[in-house]
Amino acid sequence: MLILDLDGIRAALADIDPLPAIEEGFVAYSEGKTIVPPVGELAMETGEVHIKYGCIKDQPHYVIKVASGFHGNAAKGLPTGHGMMLVFSQETGFPVALLLDEAYLTDIRTAVAGAIGAKYLAPAEVGCIGIVGSGVQARLQLEYLKPLTACRDVLVHGIDGAGLERYQDDMADAGFTVGIAPDGAAIGAACNLIVTTTPATTPILLAEHIRPGTHITAIGSDTPEKQELDAAILAGADVVVADSIPQSRLRGEISQALGVGAIEESKVVELGNVIAGKSPGRTAEDQITVFDSTGVAVQDIQIAKAVIDQIEAERT
Amino acid sequence: MLILDLDGIRAALADIDPLPAIEEGFVAYSEGKTIVPPVGELAMETGEVHIKYGCIKDQPHYVIKVASGFHGNAAKGLPTGHGMMLVFSQETGFPVALLLDEAYLTDIRTAVAGAIGAKYLAPAEVGCIGIVGSGVQARLQLEYLKPLTACRDVLVHGIDGAGLERYQDDMADAGFTVGIAPDGAAIGAACNLIVTTTPATTPILLAEHIRPGTHITAIGSDTPEKQELDAAILAGADVVVADSIPQSRLRGEISQALGVGAIEESKVVELGNVIAGKSPGRTAEDQITVFDSTGVAVQDIQIAKAVIDQIEAERT
Repeated sequence: MLILDLDGIRAALADIDPLPAIEEGFVAYSEGKTIVPPVGELAMETGEVHIKYGCIKDQPHYVIKVASGFHGNAAKGLPTGHGMMLVFSQETGFPVALLLDEAYLTDIRTAVAGAIGAKYLAPAEVGCIGIVGSGVQARLQLEYLKPLTACRDVLVHGIDGAGLERYQDDMADAGFTVGIAPDGAAIGAACNLIVTTTPATTPILLAEHIRPGTHITAIGSDTPEKQELDAAILAGADVVVADSIPQSRLRGEISQALGVGAIEESKVVELGNVIAGKSPGRTAEDQITVFDSTGVAVQDIQIAKAVIDQIEAERT
Repeated sequence: MLILDLDGIRAALADIDPLPAIEEGFVAYSEGKTIVPPVGELAMETGEVHIKYGCIKDQPHYVIKVASGFHGNAAKGLPTGHGMMLVFSQETGFPVALLLDEAYLTDIRTAVAGAIGAKYLAPAEVGCIGIVGSGVQARLQLEYLKPLTACRDVLVHGIDGAGLERYQDDMADAGFTVGIAPDGAAIGAACNLIVTTTPATTPILLAEHIRPGTHITAIGSDTPEKQELDAAILAGADVVVADSIPQSRLRGEISQALGVGAIEESKVVELGNVIAGKSPGRTAEDQITVFDSTGVAVQDIQIAKAVIDQIEAERT
């Protein structure tokens, strides 16, 4: 059995592009080729644990991901999130790999989902990339967008002044020129590819901020409560894409828009079907498109697969 | 983080008696001091995976157990069952230990539950131990009964002739004199401590076989379908003990007896309460007692704790 720690996982990821594996996962999910039971939850006084697990039927492995959130860790100088992925054989049930990723692979698979959204939905010419938030996803989303666009101009908006300055510096090191925007309106005015990455519960971007020809990837909202986009943005959008339609009924931006009657579910298409060409993505440069990423287990299954395949390739 | 393979786990167990930890777990469970969410299930064409997880509230760890059954393994010469236990900190969510036990700890915690049942319910003088079945539990139950009774006379009944002979030889090596019984009636006639360990779906022991003063531990039935004891045994018993009353409504011998109206739920007491002295166990030598073991997550939590505590004690 392969046991990889975070350094080993980072090294494996440095040599590969996990995007094709995650795309394949979204397609399999939309084709009904996955088995993904309900998320297991263990709620303690000190923290919460989620167990996400499942498989793609015709693949060799199944995956169990353990992800925890312990908010008291911050005061101890420890990361609040932690976790690991366990990979087993679908033929024998025997363990194949333990990926002790400390939740890093969840961050990566989320960033890759954003990149896939942009690949299929962003306008051909990106003038400026807008980022809302300055945390882990604000960084990783930009990193994983890099191969998909020539644009290196970025405008960032957030509520953590010091964090925004660090973001500016760090992203400059990564080759981006980053300006700081005072509000969502300034982001919408300058940017036609926008990624929102905050846990906000009231909208930061409004419909009047968004220009024709803009694509928005909404990463932050993954619960029934969180919301970064005004429902009117989804109402006015030409294309609204979910990672999982069943899940988007319950959580994320789409659930908010459905809840207030701003859109009908029939408007929503699934990312796997867009990738497979079964549902239209962007069909004109002046369209407004939205991809709402809430996170599905098939991303975990496929990022684990990508890491293991790379380790096996290195060994042969 | 501690990573222990099967050899390391066997070595740790060889130096300890896990019975007190499992007793403590049953007591905590019956006192409502545990958090045990519903079992996660992943059903594939090739096999099934169960995820059992939870914690005792005032203890340092929570435990996630992965247990799989892949019946096609037998034809490949591989064990059908496999698994591991993951131990995390209840304070931070960080992983503490990976116990790569290949399902061995599940076997042990089940054997220990049987021993606890005998400790509180068996008659003072055991004349002959009856074992039904000749597999893993038929062996381990006898092994874990050894410290609790001076009796070394055993009668075994089963359907696998070659398996019974191997059982006779192996248990002779362990210090027992084992005779082979032709049927359940012969077991009941000779034995006043009986352990049933088969996946039978029609009763092997009938009420007319069982003498006054007998204790029966029913290990085999852990689903709604399996049944080793005629419901009339539970109807006629003076004491009927469940490991978990909620679980015994759904699976095991008690669910069978409840289903046909042979007993009322009010007759059933919980093992943790018997251990704690809150519910009566055996109160007279001529009573018939039954302990129905279906397996609860708190046993997994506590066997993992026993192993980790031992490793920590060795290191200090």
